[in-house]
Amino acid sequence: MQSLKVIKIGGNIIDNSDKLQSFLNDFAAIDGLKILVHGGGKIASEFGKRLGIEPKMHNGRRITDAETIELVTMVYVGLVNKGIVSKLQSLNCNALGLTGADANSITAHKRPVSDVDFGLVGDVAIEGVNAKAISNFLEQNYTLILSPITHDGKGQIFNTNADTIASIVAIAMSKMYNVELMYCFEKKGVLADINDENSLIPLIDSTNYNHLKETGIIADGMIPKLENAFEAIQLGVSSVRILQAEDMLQSDAGTLIQK
Amino acid sequence: MQSLKVIKIGGNIIDNSDKLQSFLNDFAAIDGLKILVHGGGKIASEFGKRLGIEPKMHNGRRITDAETIELVTMVYVGLVNKGIVSKLQSLNCNALGLTGADANSITAHKRPVSDVDFGLVGDVAIEGVNAKAISNFLEQNYTLILSPITHDGKGQIFNTNADTIASIVAIAMSKMYNVELMYCFEKKGVLADINDENSLIPLIDSTNYNHLKETGIIADGMIPKLENAFEAIQLGVSSVRILQAEDMLQSDAGTLIQK
Repeated sequence: MQSLKVIKIGGNIIDNSDKLQSFLNDFAAIDGLKILVHGGGKIASEFGKRLGIEPKMHNGRRITDAETIELVTMVYVGLVNKGIVSKLQSLNCNALGLTGADANSITAHKRPVSDVDFGLVGDVAIEGVNAKAISNFLEQNYTLILSPITHDGKGQIFNTNADTIASIVAIAMSKMYNVELMYCFEKKGVLADINDENSLIPLIDSTNYNHLKETGIIADGMIPKLENAFEAIQLGVSSVRILQAEDMLQSDAGTLIQK
Repeated sequence: MQSLKVIKIGGNIIDNSDKLQSFLNDFAAIDGLKILVHGGGKIASEFGKRLGIEPKMHNGRRITDAETIELVTMVYVGLVNKGIVSKLQSLNCNALGLTGADANSITAHKRPVSDVDFGLVGDVAIEGVNAKAISNFLEQNYTLILSPITHDGKGQIFNTNADTIASIVAIAMSKMYNVELMYCFEKKGVLADINDENSLIPLIDSTNYNHLKETGIIADGMIPKLENAFEAIQLGVSSVRILQAEDMLQSDAGTLIQK
């Protein structure tokens, strides 16, 4: 099977134009098939403030109402996605930016209302990924740039978690490709001591994961990230790496997640 | 040669959600290959006002500065284009939204500075249209939705006239397809008396065009529209029609422009 890299970047790169340019230089230099999934960063909040759109929160979690979905679609797709696409074109990387609505590439379902109604937030499942359409684009040598915007197939656009899009797309494509999933974030990888960049844990498998969790070495926000990573590995993705964007071209950088 | 329809809609449809839905119902029902080119409408000016971005004018002509290109890219691509794409998906029309940067589909040049520097406005030429990429998407049965945003291939995004994008794309694709270009606007077509919808001129060719111009029956804003139309016909487009969006499915509606 051919190799495919699925790389996710977040706000720490998108919000910093120098870091973004440097990341895109590296990304454009990667050989072979590749998909970039980007989050939104702080730009949406800044534009929201200027537009007088108040962030709506419930128990510390963000609610996406009608004016917020307009805001995030404008910023994520218009500003962030097309900024990335045009910069990659200048680096001879033939980029094609997609939302889930384009080519019906990712269909989502409104997150079910429990104690909280998150509004226009879409949850994605593997079946919602149009692997055939994505694969056809890749075979035409397009580098796909996915924004975290999906649709329900009935005309409604959703805000969707970019980490989840990356893992779901990686899993769906793993039936056709040897998929390597990379989560770029602000640290060198998973750290034993969050304040010490020299405490990188180079490899996490299911055996040492439980130990790391029980002893509290891995906690908080890292747990859902790793649960996502293990799910991807279980469901067919060849490897998952959590690393700093700056180290992307080093094949042994960051933390490798294995079965 | 296979047929291809290139249809342009402007603000009078985009700004009115009922009219837009009704147009998209009709558009989705058209058989065969099709491209929709949309303008921006008043939504960009409204968001500009809310963001405190003042319209910059020089001798009555709009200047696109750095914050204006961000604004129009957000509104045209994020809001308008993805709104259209998601609505068409719900109508079983497999839409793919593109800016000129996506798949390097349309490259433009910054409009030369004469008495006015228009800023980040891109002029397009036939050579700037990536007919092969566009044709490949069409052959995969995608309906292309083009926003009036192009790029220079060096990382800069441009605001570009949507009428011109429609005619340039129609001309470029006429080497591979039998292209029918349709300009939808607010009137029934070209009118002999602008205040009388019953004064439709059903056919304009180069013979009666000169007469209509000399006698002042055709004047003002209609002249550049018709010059554009004649250029398209001269350069290979099979037919150009200027009509009301509501009449799009009637094969003899509006004003037909012929050689």
